[in-house]
Amino acid sequence: MSQSIPQTMRAAVLHGPLDIRLEERPTPAPAPDEVLVKIKSVGVCGSDVHFYKDGKLGDWTVDEPLVLGHESGGEIVAVGSDVDPGRVGQRVSIEPQHPSTSSAETLRGEYNLDPAMRFYAVPGTDGAFQEYQTIQSHFAFAVSEAVSDDAAGLMEPLSVAIATARKARLTVGDRVLIAGGGPIGLLCAQVARAYGAAEVIISDPSAERRQIAARFGATAVIDPFDVDVAGLGLGVDAFFDASGASSAVVSGLRNVRPGGSVVIVGMGDTEVPLPIPVIQNNEIWLTGIFRYNNTWPTAIGLVERGAVDLDGLVTNHYPLSQTAEALASTTQPGVIKSVVNPHL
Amino acid sequence: MSQSIPQTMRAAVLHGPLDIRLEERPTPAPAPDEVLVKIKSVGVCGSDVHFYKDGKLGDWTVDEPLVLGHESGGEIVAVGSDVDPGRVGQRVSIEPQHPSTSSAETLRGEYNLDPAMRFYAVPGTDGAFQEYQTIQSHFAFAVSEAVSDDAAGLMEPLSVAIATARKARLTVGDRVLIAGGGPIGLLCAQVARAYGAAEVIISDPSAERRQIAARFGATAVIDPFDVDVAGLGLGVDAFFDASGASSAVVSGLRNVRPGGSVVIVGMGDTEVPLPIPVIQNNEIWLTGIFRYNNTWPTAIGLVERGAVDLDGLVTNHYPLSQTAEALASTTQPGVIKSVVNPHL
Amino acid sequence: MSQSIPQTMRAAVLHGPLDIRLEERPTPAPAPDEVLVKIKSVGVCGSDVHFYKDGKLGDWTVDEPLVLGHESGGEIVAVGSDVDPGRVGQRVSIEPQHPSTSSAETLRGEYNLDPAMRFYAVPGTDGAFQEYQTIQSHFAFAVSEAVSDDAAGLMEPLSVAIATARKARLTVGDRVLIAGGGPIGLLCAQVARAYGAAEVIISDPSAERRQIAARFGATAVIDPFDVDVAGLGLGVDAFFDASGASSAVVSGLRNVRPGGSVVIVGMGDTEVPLPIPVIQNNEIWLTGIFRYNNTWPTAIGLVERGAVDLDGLVTNHYPLSQTAEALASTTQPGVIKSVVNPHL
Amino acid sequence: MSQSIPQTMRAAVLHGPLDIRLEERPTPAPAPDEVLVKIKSVGVCGSDVHFYKDGKLGDWTVDEPLVLGHESGGEIVAVGSDVDPGRVGQRVSIEPQHPSTSSAETLRGEYNLDPAMRFYAVPGTDGAFQEYQTIQSHFAFAVSEAVSDDAAGLMEPLSVAIATARKARLTVGDRVLIAGGGPIGLLCAQVARAYGAAEVIISDPSAERRQIAARFGATAVIDPFDVDVAGLGLGVDAFFDASGASSAVVSGLRNVRPGGSVVIVGMGDTEVPLPIPVIQNNEIWLTGIFRYNNTWPTAIGLVERGAVDLDGLVTNHYPLSQTAEALASTTQPGVIKSVVNPHL
Repeated sequence: MSQSIPQTMRAAVLHGPLDIRLEERPTPAPAPDEVLVKIKSVGVCGSDVHFYKDGKLGDWTVDEPLVLGHESGGEIVAVGSDVDPGRVGQRVSIEPQHPSTSSAETLRGEYNLDPAMRFYAVPGTDGAFQEYQTIQSHFAFAVSEAVSDDAAGLMEPLSVAIATARKARLTVGDRVLIAGGGPIGLLCAQVARAYGAAEVIISDPSAERRQIAARFGATAVIDPFDVDVAGLGLGVDAFFDASGASSAVVSGLRNVRPGGSVVIVGMGDTEVPLPIPVIQNNEIWLTGIFRYNNTWPTAIGLVERGAVDLDGLVTNHYPLSQTAEALASTTQPGVIKSVVNPHL
Repeated sequence: MSQSIPQTMRAAVLHGPLDIRLEERPTPAPAPDEVLVKIKSVGVCGSDVHFYKDGKLGDWTVDEPLVLGHESGGEIVAVGSDVDPGRVGQRVSIEPQHPSTSSAETLRGEYNLDPAMRFYAVPGTDGAFQEYQTIQSHFAFAVSEAVSDDAAGLMEPLSVAIATARKARLTVGDRVLIAGGGPIGLLCAQVARAYGAAEVIISDPSAERRQIAARFGATAVIDPFDVDVAGLGLGVDAFFDASGASSAVVSGLRNVRPGGSVVIVGMGDTEVPLPIPVIQNNEIWLTGIFRYNNTWPTAIGLVERGAVDLDGLVTNHYPLSQTAEALASTTQPGVIKSVVNPHL
Repeated sequence: MSQSIPQTMRAAVLHGPLDIRLEERPTPAPAPDEVLVKIKSVGVCGSDVHFYKDGKLGDWTVDEPLVLGHESGGEIVAVGSDVDPGRVGQRVSIEPQHPSTSSAETLRGEYNLDPAMRFYAVPGTDGAFQEYQTIQSHFAFAVSEAVSDDAAGLMEPLSVAIATARKARLTVGDRVLIAGGGPIGLLCAQVARAYGAAEVIISDPSAERRQIAARFGATAVIDPFDVDVAGLGLGVDAFFDASGASSAVVSGLRNVRPGGSVVIVGMGDTEVPLPIPVIQNNEIWLTGIFRYNNTWPTAIGLVERGAVDLDGLVTNHYPLSQTAEALASTTQPGVIKSVVNPHL
Repeated sequence: MSQSIPQTMRAAVLHGPLDIRLEERPTPAPAPDEVLVKIKSVGVCGSDVHFYKDGKLGDWTVDEPLVLGHESGGEIVAVGSDVDPGRVGQRVSIEPQHPSTSSAETLRGEYNLDPAMRFYAVPGTDGAFQEYQTIQSHFAFAVSEAVSDDAAGLMEPLSVAIATARKARLTVGDRVLIAGGGPIGLLCAQVARAYGAAEVIISDPSAERRQIAARFGATAVIDPFDVDVAGLGLGVDAFFDASGASSAVVSGLRNVRPGGSVVIVGMGDTEVPLPIPVIQNNEIWLTGIFRYNNTWPTAIGLVERGAVDLDGLVTNHYPLSQTAEALASTTQPGVIKSVVNPHL
């Protein structure tokens, strides 16, 4: 069952570094367990920017044309044969993963670690910078009227923040240090507060970002160029690196209490010189986040209850034809989060 | 209450690098909650060797005369006023810690992380290379006849191995890689088997140690000078570094499955260049061991049930007068574990 | 060191059922590790009422005169020889436990389960319905000006609620059912919200209590005399019984989702017929709360940050001379929480 | 791809209480993600016996003809279109579950709690008392030559025992009490030992079963008709009920240490009067087992390493034509485990 859907659609396709072309492509058809979503909003993520600027990210390279974008929401306009046709018309947020169902990782609930994962906007799987996209029905989560189209898309980075808080086993009364006041840092701060954190200290060299931080969960801010962060001795329960800066990782680590946690969220250097005796003598747990699992219901609930503000993070809107401009915008002053609205 | 105890005793006292002197000192008297133990056996630990050779270890320096030795067992010969006099005559293994009872760390059960800890053989607190030593009654654990005097002392390094297995949440069927086939590596291997590990692979450049490993829990051995460990792709559930070699830490880390654990046990470089993306993309948990808590009953049980062999590790015995020789012995060929028997 | 403290003080002493006498007693002196607290406020707990009315509670009987009251706060007026004299003058909340420091339970952080525990207002240990009382220094927690004297006392029942949330591993987005809208139920509701619960449903047959519940965390209320609770099929993540009613335990249990939790907080029948197949087929975790451990810092933080309202629960104040009236008040209409202010 | 497979096969079909008929049915064809297994051995489980004798079990009733049997192993003889044809010829153990892949329970790794589960030998889904049966490829686990056909089938009850040990968080040095020395009790005992349990006490009124118990992991046995189990005060870390007897549940519960676990494995009365204050005052965790998840690799490893003996439990073999006799055999003296070998 379906609404009237055009045979073809526009897609913003990356052909190589800085080479995004708007193309007319066949509108995808949902597989039996999938839905087709009319994409209303897609957030621009740092990983999209890496692919756009460099044509690669870590071990991935863009050898074939690729549609970027994995922070997306929209409206279900058609469903596959195994899906309840009553879903047509639902506004949804997309969890952009397609794990296998039979790996050991998936079977134990860590489907984000599934080795056969297909993920939006990673070479081999197109993302959401296009007018329509398919997703398995159970990864298209219905959202209420309280959730805007942009917020539906931004459930994705919010999920990263939730996964981070879970890894740190964040709980009521905890004190948290976050390096990096960009979108992920600000979401980590809001989520930390929702998990009951008593203090959330954001460290960022940008005065503008430090100023914004207070509106999004920070109880204090630090300028790491002004203060010797490594020597602060904060004794926090958890440190999150959302900066990708090696120096921030090391100085943050030194502020964790015995038995506390370090979670690496930002992507940075491939090698960081870590003070192992600090980890060892304090029995610190250090780990990192690779996407997320089972976070969407939590994310949607947080936004619906007003515990997390996603719309306030969105500073710039672009039509699909300006996807390249959206990707280039993220380092401009005043920009927190840029989104593309394919049907604008 | 007490047996007949001499007023003075002999102690092997470290005055500076390579300067151990046998001195006559007053026999210590137990505080109300303490027992006095006639020390029968003391294992030589790598940290003792560091203090002996360099006069320091990490941030600690030996500024005042210090008695080394923290792997000790013996017989209770006197008790403090609050202790059941019936304990006199008991053979015991000593947990060489004296945490405060009121810190947040102690109250939540992580007393090993107590900031006010006094620990045997750390500057400020004398250890066990002497004829008698005191310990709080509840940290002197009774052992049965199945436990030799040497084994009573070696419950301490066994506790390190137990703490390691616990940190890694080791369980039945796990596959484990251990770098370093010295006493700690061999104990980690035996403990891993006791926790149900299906495979225990020990990596050590010494052919002698690789040969011994099979007798103490290893199901396979690797020569890291011969094989490119980093590239093996073992996908183990846990990697333990008991080598202290930075290169071993890095190559071991690359062999851990998604969601697996790395526990740093060995003491090595103060800074190790770690491939953070490997930790992050695989959501690996990395932590380290700082002593142990609540391990003694488990350790004693393992030895009493024959699940761990401690006596087999002991290759060399020294009288108290040869404590320096014992400390110097650890790098000699054929030596696994040296012990000092103060009353030999 | 001390302020001027009278040699004797007034104490409300229970001699038998319904027999409370105001007596002049020597003011207690702090042991070396204790502080002496001038008691400003003591909440009346259901267990106090049991002892007062029946002279017994569970396996305990009041054979010797006993001072009740264990929800207390006040001001430090003297300290033992091992305590920082700078604490004199501090306003504090009392954690009314004195566990041994050497039991296996205490050493692993579960000091509330220590078999040698001495606890305020349990036969053998006097409580706080008196002008002064001693407590170990680390169990007298400093509170800020944001915490009233009454709130300082009510950190104790708040700790029960925190322990409950922890046992249930409550987290963001959880749905919770609570049977019983008395003080403990209302505190559990507030704490559940602080832990991020999305829904908190309170079931209580009293219309008055249901009305109050919405002010203290409930998102919905149920009248169990009007609705077939057992058949609601709520599928909550956690059910807390704060009613002590066997029927409420059974009907609540039937509303828990597969893998969810049941925590028994209220004291009720000594035997409850439980539908074991419901527990089994849904792999529900059922447990109960026996006091609390390591909750005070969390409790004080919640009140200081305004996340939990304790003062709003206090409906009645009594001077020490009316301790019996306070104990008799708890079943009167309009009463949520009664407190005794010994120095009123 | 396939071996030569007959068009029809024999199946032992239950038509009503005590009414099993051997019928000729079409050999099932594997779906794309399934394999077809030539069934070599099927263990008789207590739930099969309930269906056979009563035509029902708990809330399930046999309204349509049903093939029983869910403890099965055999050889892959054909594969579905999505399965590696190289699997044909593999000897396998069958995990007899078919959960949905999109429920919240499955996505978080608790697929055994999936509400849309199809399970062998539960009304609606045929089991394994037939010559061939299909299963999803990833739930057919390859076994080595070290695993007999019967043992391949008995991985299923072994999985129940593993799930039990996991729920109890059993670890090295634990002391365990098990009520019931039937096949599940004996498997729980062996598994407890494999998880490092120091003591395993089996309680069973049958002298024969108590005698056998020592061969399968028990370190001690108790006759509950002879000893007042409730009053023993064993203080075990975990109690498993594998008897289904309400009195055993209650007396076992009273032997658990503070903070310990109770896991209900046996199926018994629909209502058991439990002493809630015992659970509460000791903060005992009580839960039950509903099948298992992610246990097969662990189970197979235990048998391949010789840590668990399954073959020793098998006392009786029956051809498919005597399935009724096999189902009737379980209460006969000398019988521990009966198996049906469909191709005998």
